[in-house]
Amino acid sequence: MNITRASHVALTVSDLDRSIGFYERVVGLVLTEREGSTAYLRGLEEACHHSLVLVASGDEPRCLRLGFRVFEDEDLHALHERLATAGHDPRWVDVAHQGPTLHVDDDAGVRLEFCATMDTVPRRLTHFSTYAGGSGQRLDHFQLQSPDVASGRDFYCALGFRISEYIARQGEPPEGVFLQRKGNPHDLVLFTGPGPRLHHTAFTTPDVHTLVRACDVAGELGLGRNVERGPGRHGPGHALFVYLRDPDGHRVELFTTHYQVMDSENEPVRWEPGDPRIAIPWGLPAQSSWHEEATVFAGVPARTPASYAPMTLERFLAS
Amino acid sequence: MNITRASHVALTVSDLDRSIGFYERVVGLVLTEREGSTAYLRGLEEACHHSLVLVASGDEPRCLRLGFRVFEDEDLHALHERLATAGHDPRWVDVAHQGPTLHVDDDAGVRLEFCATMDTVPRRLTHFSTYAGGSGQRLDHFQLQSPDVASGRDFYCALGFRISEYIARQGEPPEGVFLQRKGNPHDLVLFTGPGPRLHHTAFTTPDVHTLVRACDVAGELGLGRNVERGPGRHGPGHALFVYLRDPDGHRVELFTTHYQVMDSENEPVRWEPGDPRIAIPWGLPAQSSWHEEATVFAGVPARTPASYAPMTLERFLAS
Amino acid sequence: MNITRASHVALTVSDLDRSIGFYERVVGLVLTEREGSTAYLRGLEEACHHSLVLVASGDEPRCLRLGFRVFEDEDLHALHERLATAGHDPRWVDVAHQGPTLHVDDDAGVRLEFCATMDTVPRRLTHFSTYAGGSGQRLDHFQLQSPDVASGRDFYCALGFRISEYIARQGEPPEGVFLQRKGNPHDLVLFTGPGPRLHHTAFTTPDVHTLVRACDVAGELGLGRNVERGPGRHGPGHALFVYLRDPDGHRVELFTTHYQVMDSENEPVRWEPGDPRIAIPWGLPAQSSWHEEATVFAGVPARTPASYAPMTLERFLAS
Amino acid sequence: MNITRASHVALTVSDLDRSIGFYERVVGLVLTEREGSTAYLRGLEEACHHSLVLVASGDEPRCLRLGFRVFEDEDLHALHERLATAGHDPRWVDVAHQGPTLHVDDDAGVRLEFCATMDTVPRRLTHFSTYAGGSGQRLDHFQLQSPDVASGRDFYCALGFRISEYIARQGEPPEGVFLQRKGNPHDLVLFTGPGPRLHHTAFTTPDVHTLVRACDVAGELGLGRNVERGPGRHGPGHALFVYLRDPDGHRVELFTTHYQVMDSENEPVRWEPGDPRIAIPWGLPAQSSWHEEATVFAGVPARTPASYAPMTLERFLAS
Repeated sequence: MNITRASHVALTVSDLDRSIGFYERVVGLVLTEREGSTAYLRGLEEACHHSLVLVASGDEPRCLRLGFRVFEDEDLHALHERLATAGHDPRWVDVAHQGPTLHVDDDAGVRLEFCATMDTVPRRLTHFSTYAGGSGQRLDHFQLQSPDVASGRDFYCALGFRISEYIARQGEPPEGVFLQRKGNPHDLVLFTGPGPRLHHTAFTTPDVHTLVRACDVAGELGLGRNVERGPGRHGPGHALFVYLRDPDGHRVELFTTHYQVMDSENEPVRWEPGDPRIAIPWGLPAQSSWHEEATVFAGVPARTPASYAPMTLERFLAS
Repeated sequence: MNITRASHVALTVSDLDRSIGFYERVVGLVLTEREGSTAYLRGLEEACHHSLVLVASGDEPRCLRLGFRVFEDEDLHALHERLATAGHDPRWVDVAHQGPTLHVDDDAGVRLEFCATMDTVPRRLTHFSTYAGGSGQRLDHFQLQSPDVASGRDFYCALGFRISEYIARQGEPPEGVFLQRKGNPHDLVLFTGPGPRLHHTAFTTPDVHTLVRACDVAGELGLGRNVERGPGRHGPGHALFVYLRDPDGHRVELFTTHYQVMDSENEPVRWEPGDPRIAIPWGLPAQSSWHEEATVFAGVPARTPASYAPMTLERFLAS
Repeated sequence: MNITRASHVALTVSDLDRSIGFYERVVGLVLTEREGSTAYLRGLEEACHHSLVLVASGDEPRCLRLGFRVFEDEDLHALHERLATAGHDPRWVDVAHQGPTLHVDDDAGVRLEFCATMDTVPRRLTHFSTYAGGSGQRLDHFQLQSPDVASGRDFYCALGFRISEYIARQGEPPEGVFLQRKGNPHDLVLFTGPGPRLHHTAFTTPDVHTLVRACDVAGELGLGRNVERGPGRHGPGHALFVYLRDPDGHRVELFTTHYQVMDSENEPVRWEPGDPRIAIPWGLPAQSSWHEEATVFAGVPARTPASYAPMTLERFLAS
Repeated sequence: MNITRASHVALTVSDLDRSIGFYERVVGLVLTEREGSTAYLRGLEEACHHSLVLVASGDEPRCLRLGFRVFEDEDLHALHERLATAGHDPRWVDVAHQGPTLHVDDDAGVRLEFCATMDTVPRRLTHFSTYAGGSGQRLDHFQLQSPDVASGRDFYCALGFRISEYIARQGEPPEGVFLQRKGNPHDLVLFTGPGPRLHHTAFTTPDVHTLVRACDVAGELGLGRNVERGPGRHGPGHALFVYLRDPDGHRVELFTTHYQVMDSENEPVRWEPGDPRIAIPWGLPAQSSWHEEATVFAGVPARTPASYAPMTLERFLAS
């Protein structure tokens, strides 16, 4: 049942050409291929067929699936058994360009997908002359808004995820947890909020130079307001980041590399919630849109948690 | 009368040790020497004795002088004659570590100082192991808030300054002008606002890496809120910037290199005022403190211009 | 028997103070502590007690141990059983600041050490003002010169290592193999040469800026000739690199991040040997010292393989 | 007679398409326009019509002209008078896309060209999505091989050039001089060698990231051996550099920014010749091609100076 990493995400978009252009030029992904109303993209270093799947749709923008990898097909069978035993409803499905694939919803309704293999394509890491925008290298993690972070944490830890960092008052349920499988701080992040909703998908960028280049190209293309937050420095994880909104409002993070965390003696790091001076080492908090807007999963109504009042930029400036 | 460049600034501070620490560790300047209640600092590449003079004072923080260089002492005499003829009141003064020095106020009351030479000290450009924070390399320019930008522009252009860029509605008086002598876009910037006040002093930083390092060190030292604005990209001048407030609230800009502008065929570039989408290629406008707070010149009351309503972050978020 | 990653190396040095100074100032490691004639260092992001152990010795510089991690102590027991069954001679030993530790030699005589845990210390990732030289972040991999690469490959693959890349003529034994456990291309690299000898230990550096900073600080300290090779771009792995010699001649590589390789569909990449135009995308080959000099393992005589004639800079320039 | 800066260079090339491709993709220049067998290129930040002129020719590659700017046309007339009085033979010529232009040879036979103005074109500084290769920003300086450096120095100093740095044994004639007009260390560099020949034309690159990108794109395009020297750090001037050979062997330097040097108290810096440990802070000396090969001026035979034995990489490795 060896889940290895966050793998891919499928999103609906209203204008496929426009979205492909955004991900190619601003984020710097590579278009693997386009089949009818579906476009498959990947990062510069990725040898897998897709880490981002865009599906044209006339409806509201939605997240269709979050994909994770297991190491081998036999891990997939072990996972199926574990999920079925626990009362979930895993289903075998055929997905183009992927090996055998398992569909299942987590307890909050997040639409998950697991597979061991994909079609392979050449890495584009040395095609330097084609690097564009943020030079997105590979999908790294997802962040979700969750109405019940503690419940989500339990679901994923039962599947082998480890907690790298979390945000909680001493002895109280967490407001946020950072879960990982691949040995850096994040494969999946859960934060309290109306959900389940996909808050963002994160791609790595080589360094601060390419992180800023994504912003500069966004500005050049008249998309300067799509730079929603940053560049800034994270408290948890310590990465430099920038958050972009794609043409349908799906949020993408570009960030520089994390630290390695794969030893059994590494204890989860606790952060005290609430004070922006802790989680935000410098600069200003995120504007309210960053806290309030996220992508709904197709067919899954979002629930609002009882308590939910983040320190937004608006509140900070008014205080 | 060959004015060559913006040279140095003298500021009062309430705690000299604390301020030296800020400029050394966060901005990355070098302390040349400290004499009694005065500290002399310079950038890493500067061979001049000082570009920043800090004077301990129990009073409110003030700007004492803005310094410019002329090429030779004979240029200083030509300048004296020109200023006296024009009805100003230039005075010869002795200033420590500087050659013959001329004091004069501009029409708005800005306290100016001109000299041709300074004591020299070794450049620290290759002392890489001592680089700190933003690695401030050299003083580049000053920005002033001015109650009458058109009048200021005329004063400085009469002294040989050239306009690189300006902000004005077609056919109307400028809201801001960028004036230069040394062949890059800025030695002196004038923007409409309550003044005369010193808005900021700008030092160059080698690249975006060191620009972010200044922010990170500020955060590490618990000064994360002193990162007032940015990192971001300027419209005019096109530099990457960050604005920091020193412990007394004096504002410092760190920015990456400008373009060269020294050919007689280069016409001033006009920017349309008001729309943040033009002057701010990406990200958010500056918070109101950036627009409203600045350093008063010692003994010079600030006047508020008739019309003054910049697009602040607060207004932008509320709109 | 879950080996997770390359972990640490122990080297003898002739002057402990001098070597600590080199690794702190040029490579940018952090001194965890010094106990008698032993110094323990680690990278900026590392929470483990040590990744580099320096032991003062009057003898010729030697490598004492290469350390790898397994995930849990039970993996250590499984490893012990596997090695004993295969006719090796694993021994349980006590090593300061490490959990239970296993010593064993590989078939070529490389002195290996395995443990699951170490004492933990704070990560220094956000202590930006203390970053120095190359800002070495974490130990990433070892490269060995081996008299029989095929045999070494078999030994490590039997322990679960996977081949990411290799250098071989079609159908012939490999001249070099890149073996990994942690999901990037390298934990252990074997290259044909007189051995077993430690060719280099590699630490990650955040980006090209810090990679060059290591060189600049070396130059500032009068150690410019210790920059043996680079900066340059690798063929296999595609990283930017620089190779430094420490005061005793032990070789250290600083390099920027690799690509992720952890999916079961990723096939090993084959490189054709011999032609520098393939393995060296730009610039010049390494000087002969880089090919010929390496660190002997304490008490283990090096054997020279039958065929061994790399394209050195000297040969290249003379051709 | 206010000469302001190095401005442009005209070179013959054997295949115009191939050369345009090299300068666009590897160096990162912008093609302003192509007229018949002539191509006009400029750097990303340049508003002038051309800084590099390529002329297709079936003959050996040659340098046709080195161009400098004066500030205004009246400076051109003063220059004409000065040169004529000194016994040179200045001629007024018409050059496409330039204002009135003066042709003259220096004492060694270097074919010089002076003008005050050029046609203007938009700066491309904010067209981030079109940045390519080394992102060449602007022409900065020329380096010449000269059979008599002292004589060359006298010629240019008489025209107002200032010496920023020079290489000479105490009290002996210089082996190299760095001459400047625009306030950074270089507009024209003269080094002892068979000449007059153009050793290289230097363009600025934003930072070490783009400097390495030029190398990476060269490698990607199969031009990795055109990276003749570097990346490395200069002694004099202190810039990071890389030297590329274009398809005809013309040499281009990309380098990061210099320091500012425009104050009358700045004395020339002397460097001791001969010892690569001084001029080359780290790494290896240049291979012999860098010392021996250069571009002849059209119709001007090169003379070899009496003494000429630089420390080449070949000599260094053999020593």
